Amino acid sequence: MKEVVAGIDIGGTNTVYGLVDKEGTIILNSSISTSMYNDFDSFLKALYSSMEKSVNSLDEKIKLIGIGIGAPNGNYYNGSIEFAPNLKWKGIINVVEEFKKYCDLPVFLTNDANAAAMGEMIYGSAKGMKDFIFMTLGTGVGSGIVANGKLIYGHDGFAGEIGHTIVYPDGRDCACGRKGCLETYTSAGGIKRTVAQLLNDRKKNSLLRKIDLKILSAKDISDAANKGDELALEAFEMTGKILGLKLTDAVAHTSPEAIFIFGGLAQAGDLIFNPVKKYFEEYLLNIYKNKVKILQSGLEANNAAILGAAALVLNEL
Amino acid sequence: MKEVVAGIDIGGTNTVYGLVDKEGTIILNSSISTSMYNDFDSFLKALYSSMEKSVNSLDEKIKLIGIGIGAPNGNYYNGSIEFAPNLKWKGIINVVEEFKKYCDLPVFLTNDANAAAMGEMIYGSAKGMKDFIFMTLGTGVGSGIVANGKLIYGHDGFAGEIGHTIVYPDGRDCACGRKGCLETYTSAGGIKRTVAQLLNDRKKNSLLRKIDLKILSAKDISDAANKGDELALEAFEMTGKILGLKLTDAVAHTSPEAIFIFGGLAQAGDLIFNPVKKYFEEYLLNIYKNKVKILQSGLEANNAAILGAAALVLNEL
Repeated sequence: MKEVVAGIDIGGTNTVYGLVDKEGTIILNSSISTSMYNDFDSFLKALYSSMEKSVNSLDEKIKLIGIGIGAPNGNYYNGSIEFAPNLKWKGIINVVEEFKKYCDLPVFLTNDANAAAMGEMIYGSAKGMKDFIFMTLGTGVGSGIVANGKLIYGHDGFAGEIGHTIVYPDGRDCACGRKGCLETYTSAGGIKRTVAQLLNDRKKNSLLRKIDLKILSAKDISDAANKGDELALEAFEMTGKILGLKLTDAVAHTSPEAIFIFGGLAQAGDLIFNPVKKYFEEYLLNIYKNKVKILQSGLEANNAAILGAAALVLNEL
Repeated sequence: MKEVVAGIDIGGTNTVYGLVDKEGTIILNSSISTSMYNDFDSFLKALYSSMEKSVNSLDEKIKLIGIGIGAPNGNYYNGSIEFAPNLKWKGIINVVEEFKKYCDLPVFLTNDANAAAMGEMIYGSAKGMKDFIFMTLGTGVGSGIVANGKLIYGHDGFAGEIGHTIVYPDGRDCACGRKGCLETYTSAGGIKRTVAQLLNDRKKNSLLRKIDLKILSAKDISDAANKGDELALEAFEMTGKILGLKLTDAVAHTSPEAIFIFGGLAQAGDLIFNPVKKYFEEYLLNIYKNKVKILQSGLEANNAAILGAAALVLNEL
């Protein structure tokens, strides 16, 4: 009987899950809506029923040995989701405790970026590394930091929020209520704000002037940049410069072997990686120069959330 | 027979050492010059001879069980001092290897701030803490970061350089060759530069206008501030604001239970702690607010270096 773990990623809109073997093969995956459930209890009931159906549909006999969950504001220590702004369930949700009512298995929870960092370590390009940083540039900017071979949770379970380090104390308003966080410059929304700023600051022509800012996507910006659009290229340059700078600060904390970059903006490839690498080396303290690799994540975008949540279990068992 | 460890702190001018028991009592301490030895071999010979004499002078029978060394640019992994700008010995000095020619004991080396962080954990106010940050505000700004109960050395042994995170990318020239490092604002020299800037920017009277800038000390600034001198108080406010801000970035990395502040500038007490605490809480990300203690180090200034180096051994054995 094949031993598998369940990897569950709770997102604001949908929750995806999969069964993963020790080699990282996803032998089954499916999803349910998150946002249609107003309370966590009914969500969990629906999720468990969907998972049971999926498992029963398998030809192969499997043995579930644990459940890993990635969720926004997921706290590893107490197994709860705490005040997640993008979920309907308010306050503190005791996720692990509730899961254990359905099954007598080890259940682990952490935030999505930490889970993805574990995925990178167990299944991705950080295999064998003891010190690395995982950055995800998506709607938000998340991070997971591994030092001495262990994910850093901090004393309260909330370590690894590099997206909320401050670039400019009087800079752009951030969803967190503060100003000038890295996330406001290097997320998908961040680069759009940079384009809006440049459209205002610069007089030069740009393909991006033809697109309504309300529907402008990060993809539109990389498409324009790939066609040589100077303004789009400048937006990537500015984004890379800010990310490169703040990553040197991150290195001064934990001196990682590599920094993995994942998420929508990372898909822009050289457009973002080239300026990040250039400014990163330029700003880096002497003792760290030419030592720290900036790498594309080895996780496939579609599987990363499930693999990360599954890795969380494998790392513990 | 009492088991003791030797704690050695190699500084640019002098090297201090002591024998420390497991309770943290320094049963002997002494020092030799560092700067008068042009090569490491003759320095080590002199140091060992001095240590032998000191040990022989003891009435009590002791058993030395290990040697811990704190040194600028000390690398824990390979036991070497690498390109330390303030030492006469250039290049890479294989300190641990050379010590082992004199004795068949475990020998550990790290940089001075990391050693002091271990001192705080084993003998000071961080006893029992698994996640904390140690900051030393002296000639330079050093730091040691503990997460999951372990000092973070990073992949290359050089983690924990919060003094070289960047506040303003085009800011003050730093000894490291870059611009705008935290050290240029919050070291003893940093606050002097802030006073020089304020003497230039402000027109108001100040006790500090009477002191030649070349001989102005951090102590002069706190003396003036304690007398209510507005310009001196503003210098502490600016220093505390910058330190408070960058400490929130540090929290976003490793989410420590406490941040300990040590060194010359920490001696100014409330003058520096009040603005640091105020701006720290103000800038802190919501999930961390009112959770992270900013504390004076529990180590005595005179003993910290020896205790830190000794703690390095006790932590390993």
